[in-house]
Amino acid sequence: MAFWGVEVKPGKSYIHHYNDDQGRLHLSQATLGTGSSAKKSILQCSVGDKQPIYLCSLLPEKVENCPLNLEFDEDEEVTFSVIGPHTIHLSGFFFGENEDGGES
Amino acid sequence: MAFWGVEVKPGKSYIHHYNDDQGRLHLSQATLGTGSSAKKSILQCSVGDKQPIYLCSLLPEKVENCPLNLEFDEDEEVTFSVIGPHTIHLSGFFFGENEDGGES
Amino acid sequence: MAFWGVEVKPGKSYIHHYNDDQGRLHLSQATLGTGSSAKKSILQCSVGDKQPIYLCSLLPEKVENCPLNLEFDEDEEVTFSVIGPHTIHLSGFFFGENEDGGES
Amino acid sequence: MAFWGVEVKPGKSYIHHYNDDQGRLHLSQATLGTGSSAKKSILQCSVGDKQPIYLCSLLPEKVENCPLNLEFDEDEEVTFSVIGPHTIHLSGFFFGENEDGGES
Amino acid sequence: MAFWGVEVKPGKSYIHHYNDDQGRLHLSQATLGTGSSAKKSILQCSVGDKQPIYLCSLLPEKVENCPLNLEFDEDEEVTFSVIGPHTIHLSGFFFGENEDGGES
Repeated sequence: MAFWGVEVKPGKSYIHHYNDDQGRLHLSQATLGTGSSAKKSILQCSVGDKQPIYLCSLLPEKVENCPLNLEFDEDEEVTFSVIGPHTIHLSGFFFGENEDGGES
Repeated sequence: MAFWGVEVKPGKSYIHHYNDDQGRLHLSQATLGTGSSAKKSILQCSVGDKQPIYLCSLLPEKVENCPLNLEFDEDEEVTFSVIGPHTIHLSGFFFGENEDGGES
Repeated sequence: MAFWGVEVKPGKSYIHHYNDDQGRLHLSQATLGTGSSAKKSILQCSVGDKQPIYLCSLLPEKVENCPLNLEFDEDEEVTFSVIGPHTIHLSGFFFGENEDGGES
Repeated sequence: MAFWGVEVKPGKSYIHHYNDDQGRLHLSQATLGTGSSAKKSILQCSVGDKQPIYLCSLLPEKVENCPLNLEFDEDEEVTFSVIGPHTIHLSGFFFGENEDGGES
Repeated sequence: MAFWGVEVKPGKSYIHHYNDDQGRLHLSQATLGTGSSAKKSILQCSVGDKQPIYLCSLLPEKVENCPLNLEFDEDEEVTFSVIGPHTIHLSGFFFGENEDGGES
């Protein structure tokens, strides 16, 4: 149950909720998805009602991938959204119960 | 027995099955393989029957490598496939039994 | 309480203070923010009164992201600032109390 | 005794043998070395008599570095070789005895 | 006392000495510094009297950053130097005493 992946679409935020069974989320990668424009698409996230922070900026035919190395285990909602014309695929994994004292 | 590598070919999915002896798989890197087109090739993966997620997009002569940082230990099948004209080489390693309490 | 993000603006340093509850800060990513110039923007940091060190250099439409992998837990002030015309968004996470002997 | 570095030359494989004192090898980085051609150079590795896997592809004046994140602790020979006109410098580190239960 | 940063200048090596209080050094990032040439600058390192290894190659206006992931805890001198016209800023952190059995 380690892998995690979502596709975030322009105009449609994806909200991540922490879940005890899955544990802390490690967000590893953003990749440009479908969309015909050559304009850039920015991935941003906001935690609770804090100011959104840009996590990466993807440029078609130039920079279509961005490694990330972020972790989320907050009780508050984590909202991922896209500024721009493309969808952005996110991938990562859950640490699960093995990391923090569980058995393997 | 740490290193893991496969070559994923267009039109031919590679399926990863979890194995207790090898343990959790860490997928570290994707590199563009053979293929004569200048078009991009996308690596995607799906876990069980979930929607495929793009893991990276490789552009000949521009972006031929992509670091990944993904982990897989699901009981379900993990299917890697390529959208595009090139093969993609994947490399990574197994955590094996040393990580979770085994002896070295 | 893992995620951390700030937007550093040209001419306006951001100062990070260590806090026992949050623990060590892992700075993971810098992404170019708003600004109309095509000139590069450099992120630098200085610890206490030491010489500033460039952490990354971002080029509009070419290199808008830079993965970082830095950790801060000093008692001294850590000052992040931008040389150039764009804001730079920083993201990362706190290790919190789980890492160093706390319960999960 | 942490750091590890080698220069792999075209036509001359480098073979890594596991050694108990050094422990698991972490391969962190490939960088293009000397060579006058503008053609790309590919780093590949094979474990024992398995099929070689491309680890990265380096393009002069465009992509001269590639972060890797690979680990090797196999009893079999690990053979690194270059396809192309340039040497490739590899760097990384050994985990040594501290990781798996040794004292520091 | 986690953060570590230095600026390495052409023609002037920087020598790192291991120190028990600081512990193992993690070198995380190289960023191009000042210099007016458009030529590339290469960061190399040598441990003791071993052959220098290229760690990364930075190209002005194209590739001005390079993530590294190297660790040093050798008793021998570690010498960083630049081949080329620019300074290179290095950043990273010390693991300190928390990693290997110290209290937090």
